[in-house]
Amino acid sequence: MHSEFDFINNIKKKFDLRHVGDDCAVLPKDAKTDLLITADLLVQDVDFRLDWTTPEYLGHKVLAVSLSDIAAMGGTPLHAMLSIGVPAELWKTDFLDRFYEGWHTLAREFDVELVGGDVSRADACVIDSIVMGETARSRAFLRSGARHGDAIYVSGTLGGSAAGLKLLEDGHSEHALIHRHLAPLPRLSLAAALSGLNLVTSMIDVSDGFAADLAHICRASDVGATVDAGLLPIDERVVGLFGDQEALDLALHGGEDYELVFTCGPESASAFEGLQITRVGKINSESGTIGLTRNNQTTTLPSRGFRHF
Amino acid sequence: MHSEFDFINNIKKKFDLRHVGDDCAVLPKDAKTDLLITADLLVQDVDFRLDWTTPEYLGHKVLAVSLSDIAAMGGTPLHAMLSIGVPAELWKTDFLDRFYEGWHTLAREFDVELVGGDVSRADACVIDSIVMGETARSRAFLRSGARHGDAIYVSGTLGGSAAGLKLLEDGHSEHALIHRHLAPLPRLSLAAALSGLNLVTSMIDVSDGFAADLAHICRASDVGATVDAGLLPIDERVVGLFGDQEALDLALHGGEDYELVFTCGPESASAFEGLQITRVGKINSESGTIGLTRNNQTTTLPSRGFRHF
Repeated sequence: MHSEFDFINNIKKKFDLRHVGDDCAVLPKDAKTDLLITADLLVQDVDFRLDWTTPEYLGHKVLAVSLSDIAAMGGTPLHAMLSIGVPAELWKTDFLDRFYEGWHTLAREFDVELVGGDVSRADACVIDSIVMGETARSRAFLRSGARHGDAIYVSGTLGGSAAGLKLLEDGHSEHALIHRHLAPLPRLSLAAALSGLNLVTSMIDVSDGFAADLAHICRASDVGATVDAGLLPIDERVVGLFGDQEALDLALHGGEDYELVFTCGPESASAFEGLQITRVGKINSESGTIGLTRNNQTTTLPSRGFRHF
Repeated sequence: MHSEFDFINNIKKKFDLRHVGDDCAVLPKDAKTDLLITADLLVQDVDFRLDWTTPEYLGHKVLAVSLSDIAAMGGTPLHAMLSIGVPAELWKTDFLDRFYEGWHTLAREFDVELVGGDVSRADACVIDSIVMGETARSRAFLRSGARHGDAIYVSGTLGGSAAGLKLLEDGHSEHALIHRHLAPLPRLSLAAALSGLNLVTSMIDVSDGFAADLAHICRASDVGATVDAGLLPIDERVVGLFGDQEALDLALHGGEDYELVFTCGPESASAFEGLQITRVGKINSESGTIGLTRNNQTTTLPSRGFRHF
């Protein structure tokens, strides 16, 4: 079965959709500003489980994933909309009140205002999170700007969210990694700092998985990459719980870390002092191929990540 | 159980959401322009049935309902996003290809560009339609501007869509009214003409039902209304099929006609020559009450319309 990525690429070509292909669409706003807009659809029992989260966490997370898209473009979020379908049984409870509380707690932190949306009945809970933001004109970070010789950086740590999901699947309910999975924090202040430095050549957030998301950059930029496994900032707690091999696998392919992966010229390192980022590899000219170097051996990395189909 | 209207009003008060309450949110774009944005969530077996429509009609309709929201604000649509959840069985078919064909056929007519969205797996088909447009600064038609003494107008005809739905429910599959229900046409050119005239004091589109939507205007404007049953532009075909009484009921409460209901000063009539609109009543000061005059008797109209809960 074709993946949603193939599907979107087909639609993009067929209808000549020139604004599709990054974490947000970039539209002209005024002479000095571009508008960013992103939508994320979260479906019960596909993207979340109500018995694993709380309504507050869910409200937090649906906003966080969209804020992370704004961060990935180097933008500042401003407005949001929520379209929500809920079963009648949930409608009768305090589910939505608590959901909106959780949503607003995060929204207040980043000064995001809810300006619209829709409410409908549905058999399963479904939420479409829409966030609008802005960047200086023509300054949004795209996936397509990586160049041969660029360094590859990633923020924070990897693997924590997928490990948290594993713990939930194994029946656990209380663990810092579970919190990491249920209530991710969008890297907006890092994005703002990077935007100010004007050194980033391409950026994406880690939603599908580090390898899959880096592959999105490589495809859009028509370049390849090598990643040094020893440099990957794998969450220490994941290593402690699952061991080296599985922790590496979760860091590469687990997804939903909502960290930022970006590229920049090889001489940029000194400008990044004080930022929580790690250089993990290098862009090369072998279009579409990602090599993983480990113990002096390089293997080609499959770009598998989360797929709905 | 509280309705979604009560729910939205509560959320609006609780979190002080000053941009919520019209068919679109109105946000500042540049010195001369406001941005309009609207979202409509359509859920399988609640808002549509796959055995009653075609993928092309569904694509058309999800865009049409959002374009109608842009029309209701007197705006011009520009960009759109689609978030779609589909079951794996549908994913394997040509459903989405045909859906996007139908969507684009209408989009091309109004020069609307798809700029983003999301695709997910879901147990039932669910579509969030997001459309962005614009108006001249501070010139969007709101629900809150109706004044005592204003005339009430409605475009086109009423009752056709609900009658089409009734025919579908009764097992029919081919009828002009069914087409009216499945493929509504947004009144964007009328909205543009009205916007140019600068006489409209409030506007809304008929989605929930004429009476319910007029009640939205009355509540937002803190006024009341009287409607003359004899003046309502009830679709002739509906009268022919269902008789006077049921046709009146469908015209008042059926919904989904996607016509425009608006108010304007009592002296505006001459400016409207050539427009397909009908004067149907008058705004008064009896806040929140809608009276229906029929055969010289006035009854209070319940504002019931389509409710999800």
